[in-house]
Amino acid sequence: MQEVRVELGERSYSILTGTGLLVRSGSLFKERGVKGKILTVTNPTVAQWYLTPLLDSLAEAGYQAETVLIPDGEEYKSLEQAGRIYDKLVDGEYDRKSVLVALGGGVIGDLTGFAAATYMRGIRYIQIPTTLLAQVDSSIGGKTAVNHPKGKNLIGAFYQPNLVISDVGTFRTLPEREFSSGMVEVIKHGMILDPDYFEKLEHEAQAIKARDPEIMAEIVAGSCRIKAAVVQEDERETGRRAILNFGHTIGHALESITGYQRFKHGEAVALGILAALKIALRNKILDDAALYPKAAAMFESLGLPTKLPAGISCEGIMALLYLDKKVEYGKIRWILPKSLGQVLISSKIPPETVKDTLSELGGV
Amino acid sequence: MQEVRVELGERSYSILTGTGLLVRSGSLFKERGVKGKILTVTNPTVAQWYLTPLLDSLAEAGYQAETVLIPDGEEYKSLEQAGRIYDKLVDGEYDRKSVLVALGGGVIGDLTGFAAATYMRGIRYIQIPTTLLAQVDSSIGGKTAVNHPKGKNLIGAFYQPNLVISDVGTFRTLPEREFSSGMVEVIKHGMILDPDYFEKLEHEAQAIKARDPEIMAEIVAGSCRIKAAVVQEDERETGRRAILNFGHTIGHALESITGYQRFKHGEAVALGILAALKIALRNKILDDAALYPKAAAMFESLGLPTKLPAGISCEGIMALLYLDKKVEYGKIRWILPKSLGQVLISSKIPPETVKDTLSELGGV
Repeated sequence: MQEVRVELGERSYSILTGTGLLVRSGSLFKERGVKGKILTVTNPTVAQWYLTPLLDSLAEAGYQAETVLIPDGEEYKSLEQAGRIYDKLVDGEYDRKSVLVALGGGVIGDLTGFAAATYMRGIRYIQIPTTLLAQVDSSIGGKTAVNHPKGKNLIGAFYQPNLVISDVGTFRTLPEREFSSGMVEVIKHGMILDPDYFEKLEHEAQAIKARDPEIMAEIVAGSCRIKAAVVQEDERETGRRAILNFGHTIGHALESITGYQRFKHGEAVALGILAALKIALRNKILDDAALYPKAAAMFESLGLPTKLPAGISCEGIMALLYLDKKVEYGKIRWILPKSLGQVLISSKIPPETVKDTLSELGGV
Repeated sequence: MQEVRVELGERSYSILTGTGLLVRSGSLFKERGVKGKILTVTNPTVAQWYLTPLLDSLAEAGYQAETVLIPDGEEYKSLEQAGRIYDKLVDGEYDRKSVLVALGGGVIGDLTGFAAATYMRGIRYIQIPTTLLAQVDSSIGGKTAVNHPKGKNLIGAFYQPNLVISDVGTFRTLPEREFSSGMVEVIKHGMILDPDYFEKLEHEAQAIKARDPEIMAEIVAGSCRIKAAVVQEDERETGRRAILNFGHTIGHALESITGYQRFKHGEAVALGILAALKIALRNKILDDAALYPKAAAMFESLGLPTKLPAGISCEGIMALLYLDKKVEYGKIRWILPKSLGQVLISSKIPPETVKDTLSELGGV
């Protein structure tokens, strides 16, 4: 087991990574001084694998725990489902000293975190992320939220968990595309901040593909360390934390234009990263021409897209980037690679460069 | 104009108190560096008096401002009405740099603060409280919330405003009972922390009754200073801040047993303060027997109740205190006066003392 500390003053917390941790949750809670009545939030898909082991482990350690099931899917990251958590908390007379446990992926984590941030003006919560994406991304940094019918994550709070238990054993039940999509954020971490980490990912490509628990435990701890360092510097995303959005400008546009149906988040971000590399090369921000094929090869080996699928309109994406949001071109702050492990923020990218890049990637 | 600073590190803010401030809001915002699009939240009762002057002043200072009206009443301090604020923010494309302005009493302040705390994980907000209670109590300390159908303030966040503008000129439109109810928290501040302030209140009883703007401006500033000092020490109410609940244990029980219809909050707290005085005298925590008649006289002069109204059942209140919440008697932490300007917290008050006190106050 490895422990990564996220140092945020009185809001500091630990991320425990390793294998076989989920079934030890009860004793890990106890060791860490967790007290109070527990409400676990999960979905039926995750519950079928991991709820019983978790509840057994909590019961064994003497905890009183109940469960609320949220239907599986992004559309249930809603104020309405937060309301169901509140109802359960109120009906069960959960007080300020109670603990919410999020068992699942990003949707469960964000929703549970939001409920914890707002029940009785904030109760403790613990994340047990069961997807790679949640372990390396959404469980670190305290971004909690629910969606508004007109936009994702519009209602939320910055609110840190008290403990995160990331058991890489849960990856064995993860669908292929989910796993690969999570790896995109891992690769992103290397590209923006840590050349050695990136090279390790290249070197261990086979073990990663096989989801080797030992290697994956190291990778999750590594990504947590990188993201924690950024979050520590800029908890509420007023500055530096923006670099974590590398690949996300075009990634979000791709998700949006395809109605959030066509791509997994990481798949869209992979394409966004490739676009950012091309933009940086075109504008001579990046010299190292070898970086693009390296990234593309890593994505390919994970079965991720490296070209826009047929029918994606360049004009449509350009409109999303520049027109729909009524932003002038100078307002888009592109996160672009300068070299391996280093990015810069530029608002001086001409729209033509973006458009040419999109058509090079297969846009029509 | 007086300025009271609430020092909470990066969450510090100023409370401006005085007369004629509301019509100067625009220039005050400007002086304080407020930027961004403004959404004002208010209710029709307050709007009829103060919305046009506020909007005119904002327009004059060059601000772009819209308004959302919330129906008047505690029942609208709900997640549903918060949803209406979110909708307006989303439809109007308000971004992270926008500002919510709460124009009204505690309901508007708490609801708007909650929306500000949770829209895009927190945007700026400014309070312009128009009731005495809101100016001396709810606008200081960052408690934001909405009610759950089964309990008040169950959903909320600690979230500080960026500026508070307390114009005592708004008291002229305040109904008698609203004003007196607000004065209870003012008197409470003197009793728990500041003998000089308490004596000033006794001394200025006539001017207070007449709502003399000069005296009221001093009083609001004084109460803000006292409450700010407590909040600064314990922002999230984990310890010392509990002393602000003086009079509230029995006060809340009285509100609850009468279905929140019979009493204004301050009226119930006035009775709770008298009960706390009696309990403290009975248990020899308080020696100064003159304090009870002094407090009762101040309440009487403001038309506040000093006896329980006919039909309030002692047994009913005892059940609310001890049975319904399943608390053992040792768990109730009574805030009790030790002397004028000093309270202590005791969990060693026998239920019989409480019951005897209630019947002495007129309970049946």
